[in-house]
Amino acid sequence: MKGEIITIGNELTTGRTPDLNSWYAAGKLAASGLSVTRVTSVGDDEEMVSHALKTVFESSRFVIVTGGLGSTDDDMTCRIVANALDRPLYPDHQMLEKIKAHVKARGAEMTPPLHKMALLPEGAIMINPSGDTCGFSLTKKDVRFYFLPGVPDQMRHLMDKFVLPELLSLYETLPVVRQRLIKLYGLSEPRIAEIFEKLQGKQMGAVLGFYPHFPENHITISLQGEDEPIVIAELDQVQAEIMSLVGNYVFSTGNQEMEEVVGRLLTERGKTISVAESCTGGLIGHRLTNVPGSSDYFCGGVVSYSNQSKIDLLEVSAETIKRYGAVSDETAQEMARGIRERMNSDLGLAVTGIAGPDGGSKDKPVGTVYIGFCSAEEVFSRRYRFWGRRKQIKLNTSMMTLDWVRRYLNGDPILSGI
Amino acid sequence: MKGEIITIGNELTTGRTPDLNSWYAAGKLAASGLSVTRVTSVGDDEEMVSHALKTVFESSRFVIVTGGLGSTDDDMTCRIVANALDRPLYPDHQMLEKIKAHVKARGAEMTPPLHKMALLPEGAIMINPSGDTCGFSLTKKDVRFYFLPGVPDQMRHLMDKFVLPELLSLYETLPVVRQRLIKLYGLSEPRIAEIFEKLQGKQMGAVLGFYPHFPENHITISLQGEDEPIVIAELDQVQAEIMSLVGNYVFSTGNQEMEEVVGRLLTERGKTISVAESCTGGLIGHRLTNVPGSSDYFCGGVVSYSNQSKIDLLEVSAETIKRYGAVSDETAQEMARGIRERMNSDLGLAVTGIAGPDGGSKDKPVGTVYIGFCSAEEVFSRRYRFWGRRKQIKLNTSMMTLDWVRRYLNGDPILSGI
Repeated sequence: MKGEIITIGNELTTGRTPDLNSWYAAGKLAASGLSVTRVTSVGDDEEMVSHALKTVFESSRFVIVTGGLGSTDDDMTCRIVANALDRPLYPDHQMLEKIKAHVKARGAEMTPPLHKMALLPEGAIMINPSGDTCGFSLTKKDVRFYFLPGVPDQMRHLMDKFVLPELLSLYETLPVVRQRLIKLYGLSEPRIAEIFEKLQGKQMGAVLGFYPHFPENHITISLQGEDEPIVIAELDQVQAEIMSLVGNYVFSTGNQEMEEVVGRLLTERGKTISVAESCTGGLIGHRLTNVPGSSDYFCGGVVSYSNQSKIDLLEVSAETIKRYGAVSDETAQEMARGIRERMNSDLGLAVTGIAGPDGGSKDKPVGTVYIGFCSAEEVFSRRYRFWGRRKQIKLNTSMMTLDWVRRYLNGDPILSGI
Repeated sequence: MKGEIITIGNELTTGRTPDLNSWYAAGKLAASGLSVTRVTSVGDDEEMVSHALKTVFESSRFVIVTGGLGSTDDDMTCRIVANALDRPLYPDHQMLEKIKAHVKARGAEMTPPLHKMALLPEGAIMINPSGDTCGFSLTKKDVRFYFLPGVPDQMRHLMDKFVLPELLSLYETLPVVRQRLIKLYGLSEPRIAEIFEKLQGKQMGAVLGFYPHFPENHITISLQGEDEPIVIAELDQVQAEIMSLVGNYVFSTGNQEMEEVVGRLLTERGKTISVAESCTGGLIGHRLTNVPGSSDYFCGGVVSYSNQSKIDLLEVSAETIKRYGAVSDETAQEMARGIRERMNSDLGLAVTGIAGPDGGSKDKPVGTVYIGFCSAEEVFSRRYRFWGRRKQIKLNTSMMTLDWVRRYLNGDPILSGI
């Protein structure tokens, strides 16, 4: 069952905001076996919105429209929908009461723009009439249109709770479509292209997708069929082929982020961790603590941005910094040992490097990073060279550090470079 | 001068990746006074790509196409372009030599997909022939098409260095279009809607846009005219109207992030800062260190995720934690004092709270956060209640903490709630 997405807003055509609404909707639809053939974004411009609504692709059975249902000046979707789909506007009393109640609860007063929000095209059915956030749907020539607000949280809520369930109930005879996501870290694009070559003829009709997602690489396997167990079994087989080729570069075979994988492994192994961060400035701790329940295994960290803080808080010796520099194997190791002792954790990780754009030298150019590791058994470190701008170097450093923990806990060798 | 953007890739129609390429291109084009009327995303599907290329909007004079120029299985843009625009493919020798050189430099070998990359539609002109990354352009019926790779960094590079300069040279007689961006923190949407009401009649023909950008709110002012100094003067006047209404809620009147604004203020005032983070886990330090040169004013931080680390590293008294809890005014103040002393900085900031989803209580529900501040003159703290999911609570907490520093350095009152 095919459909399309139309997103409305000057913020999209002027580059003010990335179009995360179509991204979210497309992902949810794909996961439900509903395919999106096209996403069209237009500005708050009557001609363009109208054209987009009128030229829905001939094969589309549903259209998700987001944006333009708010209360500011750019909001004119209802009027344009009314004109484009030839459905005069009328004030929806249920909607008006809702808006009044909402405004009253916030201690504000009704204004003309708020009154405008209660006008709906004829034949429209409110989505979520009893909730805080509403949208509406209407059917025109066998095409089901869903109009949702552009505010991401509101749009997502209505999409998940109302639009998807309705679509799935309308189109019951879907073929089975299943997708698997494989996330890799540490393999270059040409290496992945080679792997795709090797998979030729072994993919059982699966469509493979490759998506660089800095600093990760993602591979998707999509398979369609009549019978779910067969589709799943075939997916498993293609996935096993890929796993045999890329082995321990795969950190997730689902939607999990690296920090979630690391968190799960730490929990399973009953280990705790702490981090001493220089060039990443707190990013590793931030990522670890994005995971609910991370306080069970993350003891804490020190962001030792200055040399003095490395000495004061991590007991790195002033002599080491003087002799080898703050960006060195020796300092990384002392930082890892220091944070582990300070935090009384099983593992201590440390990073020190040059994120740029300044501070590089011939010996240690921008992107040079040392990662240090300390457990009860061993202390070691390794030098890396990351590329890109400051934020990319920080991100790659955090990724490699988390990957160290993942590989250590899995008993896999740590990557020597990427 | 109007144009449009077409982005190609299954990752876009299946929700694997947000469409950041169109976002980037649209932003750059808008800033140059070139307007984008439509963005269309289609999957790696011959019919849909072909349809998108053939149905370029009648008023479009340029089309930016991204995606499909790589080496994996989904790449078929060139062939489809050749068919859709009726321009047979031929092997471009310059391109073939480039690819060979590139592959050789990486120690890899030429493969059929790499050979395929050298086929270009007739009349195509290579973009950046001497560089690592290429695209091509061609003209059909007065419409200039630019085909760029889908890898964001490559696409951005070609866009900035080649496409934009060419477009600007082709269409010299542009009217002057200028946009101003105003970023606010701490004002609710209804309050901003009221401000828009008050601006009615004072906007001198400017188009105002309002964009929630959690946890920030952005207002854009767009003005068009013949004469740049006049457009700028009018923009200044509208901006002054807005500033008189929203005052110190505005943290940036350009593209600067909050952490850049805070960094500039710290530099101007010659102050240094350190942070003690509990619920944010390192996010504040991460944000501060995203700014190049932040080592001049950011001394470092402690991520005191456990109670023990608050005691050991920040000298919070065990008695305080026992009596008032780790999430309390008293603990926040002791953390702020502790980090300031530890790091020997002018300002010490601290956050402690409940990011959820667990850990809340009736007295201190999820989203309860205490922020603490310590300078040579004063120590104080305040309680906040933030809403949303874990990551949103963390983000809002980091934003409020940075806003404290901004307001303190500007001599403005600190927000009591949002």
